[in-house]
Amino acid sequence: MNAGARLCVQKYGGTSVADPDRLRAVGARIVRRLESGTGVVVVVSAMGKTTDDLIKLAHQVTARPGGRELDMLLSTGEMVSSALLAMVLRERGHPAIGLTGAQAGVRTDSTFNRARITEIDTRRIEAELAQDQVVIIAGFQGITSEADVTTLGRGGSDTTAVALAAALGAKTAEIYTDVDGVYTTDPRVDPKARKLHDIAYEEMLEMAAQGARVLHPRAVELGLLYDVPILVASSFRDTVPGTIIRRQVAMEPTNRVRGIALDRDVAAVTVRAVPDRPGIAAQLFGPLADAAISVDTIVQNASVERLTDLTFSVAQDDWRRAQEIVEPVARAIGAAEVIADHHMAKVSIVGTGMQTAPGYAATMFRALAEASINIQLITTSDIRITALVADASGEAAVRVLHAAFQLDEPVEASRD
Amino acid sequence: MNAGARLCVQKYGGTSVADPDRLRAVGARIVRRLESGTGVVVVVSAMGKTTDDLIKLAHQVTARPGGRELDMLLSTGEMVSSALLAMVLRERGHPAIGLTGAQAGVRTDSTFNRARITEIDTRRIEAELAQDQVVIIAGFQGITSEADVTTLGRGGSDTTAVALAAALGAKTAEIYTDVDGVYTTDPRVDPKARKLHDIAYEEMLEMAAQGARVLHPRAVELGLLYDVPILVASSFRDTVPGTIIRRQVAMEPTNRVRGIALDRDVAAVTVRAVPDRPGIAAQLFGPLADAAISVDTIVQNASVERLTDLTFSVAQDDWRRAQEIVEPVARAIGAAEVIADHHMAKVSIVGTGMQTAPGYAATMFRALAEASINIQLITTSDIRITALVADASGEAAVRVLHAAFQLDEPVEASRD
Repeated sequence: MNAGARLCVQKYGGTSVADPDRLRAVGARIVRRLESGTGVVVVVSAMGKTTDDLIKLAHQVTARPGGRELDMLLSTGEMVSSALLAMVLRERGHPAIGLTGAQAGVRTDSTFNRARITEIDTRRIEAELAQDQVVIIAGFQGITSEADVTTLGRGGSDTTAVALAAALGAKTAEIYTDVDGVYTTDPRVDPKARKLHDIAYEEMLEMAAQGARVLHPRAVELGLLYDVPILVASSFRDTVPGTIIRRQVAMEPTNRVRGIALDRDVAAVTVRAVPDRPGIAAQLFGPLADAAISVDTIVQNASVERLTDLTFSVAQDDWRRAQEIVEPVARAIGAAEVIADHHMAKVSIVGTGMQTAPGYAATMFRALAEASINIQLITTSDIRITALVADASGEAAVRVLHAAFQLDEPVEASRD
Repeated sequence: MNAGARLCVQKYGGTSVADPDRLRAVGARIVRRLESGTGVVVVVSAMGKTTDDLIKLAHQVTARPGGRELDMLLSTGEMVSSALLAMVLRERGHPAIGLTGAQAGVRTDSTFNRARITEIDTRRIEAELAQDQVVIIAGFQGITSEADVTTLGRGGSDTTAVALAAALGAKTAEIYTDVDGVYTTDPRVDPKARKLHDIAYEEMLEMAAQGARVLHPRAVELGLLYDVPILVASSFRDTVPGTIIRRQVAMEPTNRVRGIALDRDVAAVTVRAVPDRPGIAAQLFGPLADAAISVDTIVQNASVERLTDLTFSVAQDDWRRAQEIVEPVARAIGAAEVIADHHMAKVSIVGTGMQTAPGYAATMFRALAEASINIQLITTSDIRITALVADASGEAAVRVLHAAFQLDEPVEASRD
């Protein structure tokens, strides 16, 4: 697309548009960008706690809100932000138009509450841009082929923004939020956390999936798929540079760990002394899937005397149901017992360099051991090593690893 | 339409759906109707004060909210009610679906903030009804041919309900609200007000236009146009019969005044000693129309020595602007002065029998005179006589006229 090069797509999250004053501040920021001669497409979230409030309202009328009507309900939050921000810009003398997801051409499948974008028909957006309108799009929502409103799941406005940047050919998707970038770890956990200048899509995915809540993982996946760089920056502090999420960044010679992720919403369920026969895993995990319990990590130890231990992790809300579902199966297959520990945390080191360089696992385990932190379970991917530890040790583990991999120090310093 | 006979269209206003408890009560009422074997299409307003709150929010970001984005903003209120009420019904085990105005096929022109319904494409509604869904439609809103959201103006959900009843061939449009029917006058003004069993469309139009806020006038116009009887009844008290608005009701032998209407949002502007030349009225009212000031009553006295007094009424919010606009024109055309009185009220007697029976005006003026209420201006239509009085006398005028036309007594008694 030709227009793309002079077009930017910006997304403002809920805290950035929480009240009229903040909406005005966002308006001022958009105007500065306009004045540089760029076309601007804006994606907005619902104001402040609106989505939570709407969910609470739904809970007051139904035991289990969900499905089509929940999406109709929740989609109103972003519509309100979009309409108000367009008013703010017009009040400043800039032509602006608010569009619902449907009007913006965001087509999705029919999986209510967590729909996937199938296509963006950009004709309306481009027609408005051609008339020098600032286009303000309600994020987080789309429309099915049956004209039903869908939502993309929590954090879905990030996904809307990256998908729009891809569809419109914009150079970057700019995500403005209440943090000023991606850090080596959560600064609330380790005050020594450093902001990264850039991070690779894959690394960010591991960081996000492991609990760094800066950006919705699907937005990063879309960025990776369509090669759309994503800028994460503060919506409050205009002068502070953010973090760019993009294709594989330059290797750093001595430090390939990019960040430490902590996920505290973890419960572990262990089925002990499981007979090591084919089909056992299917018998255990089939009923969990039927109950819509999302199983995260699964680890099965090497078999000893044809018996093995099988551990899996679930969100803390699910541990009791998971145990109830698994126990009768465990009895039926002759396992010894089912143990659940719902106070767990996952600590991960993430970095694209790791798969080709040995020694990271050893450094990680040694650092944790020296801090007397017990590792209950280990899993690895190409660019991540995760240790399951007691939740009480989670934050300490982050700080220990942050120091062990010299993330406390600026990148330049670590080259010495 | 065949289905129409076994179909009812119900509308619930803002106070009827103000909170989860009331939504549940509305749900129970709908279920009772379903159990009688009738298909139900429901139109809902925004919950409680939602629309006012959204307008306040708009005022916080723009000096003069309006246009396309205000409609996008306001339409969310009814979407929320619609989604929640569908959840309520599903929670009770009844299939139900919430539809936006757009999804329900409510097509309008592009006059944002006060759009007119041009057509209702009932295909989606009928498809859902065929699957035994209760169809819950967000009132007050529609969609243009450009897929922009519009609203129908305050009270527009009444209009949605009557238009839907006409389009679907339903026998009646049922409007459930916080009053239990149409009264001979506002019971807060005159405690002796009586509820009417029925009232003709034309009478109701005069009552509504003159300040009886029970039902949106355009809904009544639509009922008249498509001959859809409209039931107005309490959403809180199931057993109390309401009022039916329908074609010309049976004449009552001795009492053709059906009700007394009071409108207290009135300011009068008088241009004194206007030279009586052709084109003067156009010179005066053209600039007011350009400034979007809605002029209600216009009265021009008979000319004395080629000079006339010209009085018009506007809403109280507009009187100062109206005076500012008219003063230079008045000077230019050689009028003596412009006087504004912004504490006025209009009191009207309404009844379809009046045009053929003399004496009503005389009775009205005598009754007001006996109560020492000064009449500043008089206008009449076929079925209405209106007197402009000082606002401080407005309520007393209502009570005087209510008694003078024997509206205090049951209809049966007045036949003696």
